[in-house]
Amino acid sequence: MSSLRTVEWYRGRVRMIDQTKLPERFVYVTYDNYRQVAKAIREMVVRGAPAIGVAAGMGLALAACSSKAKNKDRLLVDLHAAATILRQSRPTAWNLFWGVDRVLRKAEAANGAVSEIISEIVREANLMADEDVEANRRIGEFGADLIDDGDRIMTHCNAGTLATVSYGTALAPIRTAIHRGKKVSVIATETRPRLQGAKLTVYELLSDKIPVTLIVDGAAGYTLKSHLVNKVIVGADRITASVVANKVGTYPIALAAKANGVPFYVAAPTSTFNLRNDSSEVKIEERDAAEVVNVAGKRIPPKGVKVFNPAFDLTPVELVTGFITEKGVIDPSQMKMRLQ
Amino acid sequence: MSSLRTVEWYRGRVRMIDQTKLPERFVYVTYDNYRQVAKAIREMVVRGAPAIGVAAGMGLALAACSSKAKNKDRLLVDLHAAATILRQSRPTAWNLFWGVDRVLRKAEAANGAVSEIISEIVREANLMADEDVEANRRIGEFGADLIDDGDRIMTHCNAGTLATVSYGTALAPIRTAIHRGKKVSVIATETRPRLQGAKLTVYELLSDKIPVTLIVDGAAGYTLKSHLVNKVIVGADRITASVVANKVGTYPIALAAKANGVPFYVAAPTSTFNLRNDSSEVKIEERDAAEVVNVAGKRIPPKGVKVFNPAFDLTPVELVTGFITEKGVIDPSQMKMRLQ
Repeated sequence: MSSLRTVEWYRGRVRMIDQTKLPERFVYVTYDNYRQVAKAIREMVVRGAPAIGVAAGMGLALAACSSKAKNKDRLLVDLHAAATILRQSRPTAWNLFWGVDRVLRKAEAANGAVSEIISEIVREANLMADEDVEANRRIGEFGADLIDDGDRIMTHCNAGTLATVSYGTALAPIRTAIHRGKKVSVIATETRPRLQGAKLTVYELLSDKIPVTLIVDGAAGYTLKSHLVNKVIVGADRITASVVANKVGTYPIALAAKANGVPFYVAAPTSTFNLRNDSSEVKIEERDAAEVVNVAGKRIPPKGVKVFNPAFDLTPVELVTGFITEKGVIDPSQMKMRLQ
Repeated sequence: MSSLRTVEWYRGRVRMIDQTKLPERFVYVTYDNYRQVAKAIREMVVRGAPAIGVAAGMGLALAACSSKAKNKDRLLVDLHAAATILRQSRPTAWNLFWGVDRVLRKAEAANGAVSEIISEIVREANLMADEDVEANRRIGEFGADLIDDGDRIMTHCNAGTLATVSYGTALAPIRTAIHRGKKVSVIATETRPRLQGAKLTVYELLSDKIPVTLIVDGAAGYTLKSHLVNKVIVGADRITASVVANKVGTYPIALAAKANGVPFYVAAPTSTFNLRNDSSEVKIEERDAAEVVNVAGKRIPPKGVKVFNPAFDLTPVELVTGFITEKGVIDPSQMKMRLQ
């Protein structure tokens, strides 16, 4: 899995692994316009904050390529219109806004003929993808230093290759530790409602022959209290100075880890950090009730029930033992100093 | 729902609502021997600690009725054999052992002809059922005193009519508060892997026109942190001096309630308390991997994944605001004084 790319620029188009089809079928989808990319993000064909960030950047590159603008000003108008659509695809992952803004800034700073500016935009989107892989490799190196031989590590949702361009965030330290010869096994939560743990994390880990045990989300507390795991590593969708927004269910795991003295790490590239915002500014996406009431395609509860389906939750940074980034492992108290 | 009986003695047999069929179909099943009852408990045709306790007691009454013993000693041999089978049906709910022991003690103390002893055993099993309903009514009265108009109350799994003979434990205070004219709504966790919340609690509450909102288990933390609920009430399968064994997922809810200042109540009859044992003596049932990997009848993760499927978890009593029992609301620090 770690040599695959979840999102890539392929012959002038954007190619993605269709994650809604896994683990039954491994298929690529290819898009030639940014609206398709925005839809793919919204419908979670591509998901995971770093992957979304790069997909959005490549979406803007598609918008640039298909623009009929004859001058830079007109190109920028087209790009800002596409950026608005892409930013609306999902509200929580910071990397989405970061990715869109990075490509826009590049376009604004570029000079020369329109065709040259477009080439620069495409190069920038590709550079973001390469940098994501490199950042994850470094997260792997720094994170692997924290892992001991024989560790059993809990993770939630999917923060692996499929959540990034490649190699993963939370799974990167595990991969690197295993490459270094350590014996490591994983406890994966199934992650309702969309079951990314059962579908994607289990798929990735089994593909790479990494031992994995699946639990329901509610069993994370008992598993931690029974000391059946000795570390937790999760990814993040947005990290502010006070909270980590990540897949719903992360916060109870962090509480149970704290209560039982189990280190709780958050692995994320610096593109996930937005230290100027506080938690009140993090928009928590609420997704469709259908995700909860239709389990594996079958309606479960009687009709008439209301549903509350937040896709993320907020974990106070005080519950985080350390942030594993491409710049090193950072203590929550040193975040601002190290990352701003 | 609150006038139905989940388990009852019906024309010399044991009749139960088949809870594996709900909410699609409401059907009764009737058993005429104790082995069928033990199987029904194991396969969760009947579930919920108080309901299991009464079912097991009635199972013993069936064993008595079908015994060919000509004297009391021989009858007791048959009863002890049946008791062994019934005790092995599920390991965690204390009420199971309590129910079996209560009927056995009655048999041992009884005098007279074998037919008279059998009648006494059947009367005892029926008395247990009536007492359970009465205990739940009293739990409702005491618990309703804690509920304010407008309360939004979170519950986990199903601790309603379907978990008891009737009226419920955790849902009893909500029912009584509503009967008293208070406006109360419920947030129900779906409760993976068997989805008792989505299937049974939602069914019960909608049947009684009590407003209910369904969430995935992982969303309980965010819901509490966002103060979308102002009380939690759950049931229990066994309460010792140090821990509450209840459906897996209870412990993280208790941690999140504590962290956010939300009162966390456990509603249970005194038959659920076993204050002489400490937590190390609570056997946590591990159920089949199929419950986790087959979601609504469909295989989710790739083959080859290991599964850990504990059915219960242990919540330290320090996280409990109060135990709502038929003897009143009891502070954890006063449990031994009030209940031993």
